[in-house]
Amino acid sequence: MSATKSTSQNLSFVLEGIHQVKFEDRPIPELKDAHDVLIDVKFTGICGSDVHYWEHGSIGQFIVKDPMVLGHESSGVVSKVGSAVKSLKVGDQVAMEPGVCCRRCEPCKRGKYNLCENMAFAATPPYDGTLARYYVLPEDFCYKLPENMTLSEGALMEPLGVAVHIVRQASVTPGQSVVVFGAGPVGLLCCAVARAFGASKVVAVDIQKPRLDFAKKYAATSVFEPSKVPATENAARMIEENGLGQGADVVIDASGAEPSVHTGIHVLRTGGTYVQGGMGRSEITFPIMAACTKELNVKGSFRYGSGDYKLAVDLVSSGKVNVKELITGTVKFQEAEQAFKEVKAGKGIKTLIAGIE
Amino acid sequence: MSATKSTSQNLSFVLEGIHQVKFEDRPIPELKDAHDVLIDVKFTGICGSDVHYWEHGSIGQFIVKDPMVLGHESSGVVSKVGSAVKSLKVGDQVAMEPGVCCRRCEPCKRGKYNLCENMAFAATPPYDGTLARYYVLPEDFCYKLPENMTLSEGALMEPLGVAVHIVRQASVTPGQSVVVFGAGPVGLLCCAVARAFGASKVVAVDIQKPRLDFAKKYAATSVFEPSKVPATENAARMIEENGLGQGADVVIDASGAEPSVHTGIHVLRTGGTYVQGGMGRSEITFPIMAACTKELNVKGSFRYGSGDYKLAVDLVSSGKVNVKELITGTVKFQEAEQAFKEVKAGKGIKTLIAGIE
Amino acid sequence: MSATKSTSQNLSFVLEGIHQVKFEDRPIPELKDAHDVLIDVKFTGICGSDVHYWEHGSIGQFIVKDPMVLGHESSGVVSKVGSAVKSLKVGDQVAMEPGVCCRRCEPCKRGKYNLCENMAFAATPPYDGTLARYYVLPEDFCYKLPENMTLSEGALMEPLGVAVHIVRQASVTPGQSVVVFGAGPVGLLCCAVARAFGASKVVAVDIQKPRLDFAKKYAATSVFEPSKVPATENAARMIEENGLGQGADVVIDASGAEPSVHTGIHVLRTGGTYVQGGMGRSEITFPIMAACTKELNVKGSFRYGSGDYKLAVDLVSSGKVNVKELITGTVKFQEAEQAFKEVKAGKGIKTLIAGIE
Amino acid sequence: MSATKSTSQNLSFVLEGIHQVKFEDRPIPELKDAHDVLIDVKFTGICGSDVHYWEHGSIGQFIVKDPMVLGHESSGVVSKVGSAVKSLKVGDQVAMEPGVCCRRCEPCKRGKYNLCENMAFAATPPYDGTLARYYVLPEDFCYKLPENMTLSEGALMEPLGVAVHIVRQASVTPGQSVVVFGAGPVGLLCCAVARAFGASKVVAVDIQKPRLDFAKKYAATSVFEPSKVPATENAARMIEENGLGQGADVVIDASGAEPSVHTGIHVLRTGGTYVQGGMGRSEITFPIMAACTKELNVKGSFRYGSGDYKLAVDLVSSGKVNVKELITGTVKFQEAEQAFKEVKAGKGIKTLIAGIE
Repeated sequence: MSATKSTSQNLSFVLEGIHQVKFEDRPIPELKDAHDVLIDVKFTGICGSDVHYWEHGSIGQFIVKDPMVLGHESSGVVSKVGSAVKSLKVGDQVAMEPGVCCRRCEPCKRGKYNLCENMAFAATPPYDGTLARYYVLPEDFCYKLPENMTLSEGALMEPLGVAVHIVRQASVTPGQSVVVFGAGPVGLLCCAVARAFGASKVVAVDIQKPRLDFAKKYAATSVFEPSKVPATENAARMIEENGLGQGADVVIDASGAEPSVHTGIHVLRTGGTYVQGGMGRSEITFPIMAACTKELNVKGSFRYGSGDYKLAVDLVSSGKVNVKELITGTVKFQEAEQAFKEVKAGKGIKTLIAGIE
Repeated sequence: MSATKSTSQNLSFVLEGIHQVKFEDRPIPELKDAHDVLIDVKFTGICGSDVHYWEHGSIGQFIVKDPMVLGHESSGVVSKVGSAVKSLKVGDQVAMEPGVCCRRCEPCKRGKYNLCENMAFAATPPYDGTLARYYVLPEDFCYKLPENMTLSEGALMEPLGVAVHIVRQASVTPGQSVVVFGAGPVGLLCCAVARAFGASKVVAVDIQKPRLDFAKKYAATSVFEPSKVPATENAARMIEENGLGQGADVVIDASGAEPSVHTGIHVLRTGGTYVQGGMGRSEITFPIMAACTKELNVKGSFRYGSGDYKLAVDLVSSGKVNVKELITGTVKFQEAEQAFKEVKAGKGIKTLIAGIE
Repeated sequence: MSATKSTSQNLSFVLEGIHQVKFEDRPIPELKDAHDVLIDVKFTGICGSDVHYWEHGSIGQFIVKDPMVLGHESSGVVSKVGSAVKSLKVGDQVAMEPGVCCRRCEPCKRGKYNLCENMAFAATPPYDGTLARYYVLPEDFCYKLPENMTLSEGALMEPLGVAVHIVRQASVTPGQSVVVFGAGPVGLLCCAVARAFGASKVVAVDIQKPRLDFAKKYAATSVFEPSKVPATENAARMIEENGLGQGADVVIDASGAEPSVHTGIHVLRTGGTYVQGGMGRSEITFPIMAACTKELNVKGSFRYGSGDYKLAVDLVSSGKVNVKELITGTVKFQEAEQAFKEVKAGKGIKTLIAGIE
Repeated sequence: MSATKSTSQNLSFVLEGIHQVKFEDRPIPELKDAHDVLIDVKFTGICGSDVHYWEHGSIGQFIVKDPMVLGHESSGVVSKVGSAVKSLKVGDQVAMEPGVCCRRCEPCKRGKYNLCENMAFAATPPYDGTLARYYVLPEDFCYKLPENMTLSEGALMEPLGVAVHIVRQASVTPGQSVVVFGAGPVGLLCCAVARAFGASKVVAVDIQKPRLDFAKKYAATSVFEPSKVPATENAARMIEENGLGQGADVVIDASGAEPSVHTGIHVLRTGGTYVQGGMGRSEITFPIMAACTKELNVKGSFRYGSGDYKLAVDLVSSGKVNVKELITGTVKFQEAEQAFKEVKAGKGIKTLIAGIE
């Protein structure tokens, strides 16, 4: 398996089957539309869903039937622009939003394009991902990086976009208390975004002590390690230890774990908001009467939509959120599979794959 | 056990223990405040929670320790007014909102008084209910009945208030499709209120055919009898049969049954709203990933709050909702226990207990 | 000036200058996109803005520089469909939404496509209107008429869409009191839509008695004829006569007249909502301190957006709003100019121009 | 005129007529309710409305007929608590919210107690103000100051509460651009609060250069000095100089000046929000068609309500907003009138009157 720039047009990292990947030289993609731009991809982060496809060949109803390029957390440099493109020019550094909506269905037209009925999302079958030299996107899914941001930060706009969407779904407002379950990349970013939204208290919850230590240093105002006791007891202790009064205003689950969901519901005040950000088992037991009698707002959060990437860039550019601290390693494009192995092994927080030099 | 007006001041129907009730002559209650009024109670409906106390002596954390007057769905005639009362006079017929909030806690001050931290709710321990000759309420918890409404309709303002609150929690707007699970009194009223809110399609769901027949006649635009198949299949059939397109806009559960919850989540479109109105088991299995990836809004609904009773009266007075059709029987005050037995046996839809003549 | 079908491809009614119109045979327009459909236009209503262009050659910043086809309130029959069209077929009868958004700008992507930065709106320079035999629209801007609706009703979906948008901007909910200033077509439709949204009281206000008589018969629950007294006095009388208590919940201005605006602000309760729907002078005197201390929500309403046409069709199809009563005349295509003269003269409520036979 | 603690019970600063004030020894007020506390007032700020009463004897419809104690921006120490008080004890330092609502009217019950129909507001006729040694408030209108806050900061919670309410009315969210007209105390605090709410750009506008210099140093990200040109030109220049793209997301007027209102409306993007915070002439000319066609949300803001004081304390305690910098002088209680003269003369930003030693 070799990947040399000199001999390739558009080298791509392709998933062929479970744990079966290869580098393939594909044609440089054409602009499909006058609004499209061609991007020379420079950095790509790897997340749990990428690893899940690599390990299992599918996620829920999405099954990889044909070989598919992996990757969707990318940044790059504009290398060609369509005739109608106004806001970008060749050479601009951009964060790449990897899901292009149809712009015509009902969710698109009511401003919820993340719920598009015809979404073409990178590295979600049957759509190829961004782990290639080149990738085409419409102008309005590229976000020009300000001068004070780097391309490696740009690749982090994807998980930060996820976190921004979650915190917006939670309608976090200044002065609120927010509890975040799960201190992986998205959970950590949710803590940081909640702080940027003005939350007074941000409690990070995880069962791994080192993750909590990082969370405390990174963005949480306090941390909580659950005991092996009923959820109501963990909730009561969390309220007590953190002075949450009648309960937390907001709970974000970025863990997908059933005990987190239970503790989260019980730690909320009446009228509080719970957002499910993390993916886990499709069905779990759920304390529905507590949610009912406390009139909780339980919401899902799916990818990112209108304004999320733009705000992600703004939060980093303005210094309100730091994403550099989360980048714990960068591998060469030719060693892409190594990044999957590291994420699988839980090494570091966020590993990037550099583009082809 | 006898209950004669001539020899009594304030005859009351008191729960002493499980299935142990008695009539007791209590002192006429005093006005506690210049804003209070004394009401001569005329009609009281019985609902599942009353019956639950009668049968079990408790509901969840609420345990009847001392003898407690039952009843909370009442109407009556003003028989005395405090010195500060302006909007009511002796002789006025009123619907009685049975939960008086503290007016001082955070939920009260942000307009969610149904979530009051210090609620005094009729027939919820330790507070006596309305199954007595007299009951005291603050002026602003009494709703004067317009001339075109009767006192028996007035007693129905309580379950209608519950339904109004649920439909408001669901933010039903004109043109939407609404699926209501459970065709008992509250479910039926939810159908009627959803129609009054302009829903184009209101699908009533129940496992009892006669209830569906009534629902169809009463307020639903169509009905659905679930099969013993997976929830996703019932959901798919419901969408197909009712032309729900990408799914229903709103689901209201007034059943508390786990299969309803599952079918409800699966029948919703992306971004749809689910409101849990019915009480059931405190924990159930729940299709959380469907709720997450469809970005549903899952909300609880608890009792009634700001503006609900007022709107309930308006809906009946304006002819948009008919509550008379739901009154299937009236018993004398002295036969109050009979009403509990009938509700327990599932006889009729709503049984009223008349006040003492 | 003659307009014969036999000799023409796509006869069009063209404005060349102030009061200068002609019939011109233009090429049948091409589908620009696989999602487009070609429509054989059947009915077109005329509104104040059409007449304004005809009389003045401009509206505000929009100036007719080149000859422009007039008309934008149309319905028609699908006569050709693009290769990607799924929901429509040749022969379908549709209401035509005449403003096509760019789908890419920020307002489009946050669901406010009526505020699109690059809107192509029929009969707004430089875009031709619908007063032609054929017109091209994307599939998603065509609304298939249910079997119980006629093509002449379909042409009314445009002003009804305007009214739906206004009432939605006003967030009218059941039980509210709504005051509508101006009883022209849009004001009348606002009354009807407000009723369909569950408003308990809908007060129509106009200075012409016959219009009030029609409004009362058509959709208003009461009417109000302002006196030549200060706005606060008219407001006080309106509150008194209509039992509006602390004031109206919602005011809609469909008149654009300064005295209406003043009376509207003063008739609102604290926290009430005012929507400016009617166009008038660009600047007027405004009681800003009343708006401030009552914490009013003063909103504009511009055209129609996400879901408005769909709801308009639903309201008529379900019988909640009647538009037939507003159609007071129909002229032949060849007599189109006559319709402009009638609207200018204030004859009737809504005059339609039939398509070419 | 003398004011000696030793000989007085409850020395009070009383307005008797225009420019007529006196010190009067009044009885120590009684607790009216078990929930009341007696406060030993320590600091009182003076604002424009106090000065207006002093100069004119009235504000709009509020006319000082009987002698009235002035002052409403106060902090103090709890010196007595009612029997039902739970959250406060003698010796606690508190910020005092000076308007006590009736808790029973419709606005109170829907969570808008600042719009209470029966508000008892300090120093608004006929209610006495806080410029006295003692003042009685219900527990829930007292906000305990955290240990890191001083009593002089506590007195600033009133204008900060005003600013919090304004920024909340404006629904400022992270990443937005906010333009604030008027750089007096409230305008400056609005800048600071908007920053705390995550606004990326906060442009302060004033016609006095020194105020802009302070605003820039204090909280604005940039400043703008309007020229004597039409409002549209100032708006265009502001957009240009500040990179506001399609216009500002939010405009707050804390000036009450007509040219500010005009420039504010024109500087907003479509769908933007305008909040009128400053008081000025009751009627002004207003560019209503721009507000209409841009679908602006124009809102008023009146005093402060649910959660505003609590958030004000939180913002200062957490270091997000600095109020100390605004305190430019403190006078002795006995020199209270001097503070009025200084405010009238425009000296400093905020002058406090110390309580009686």
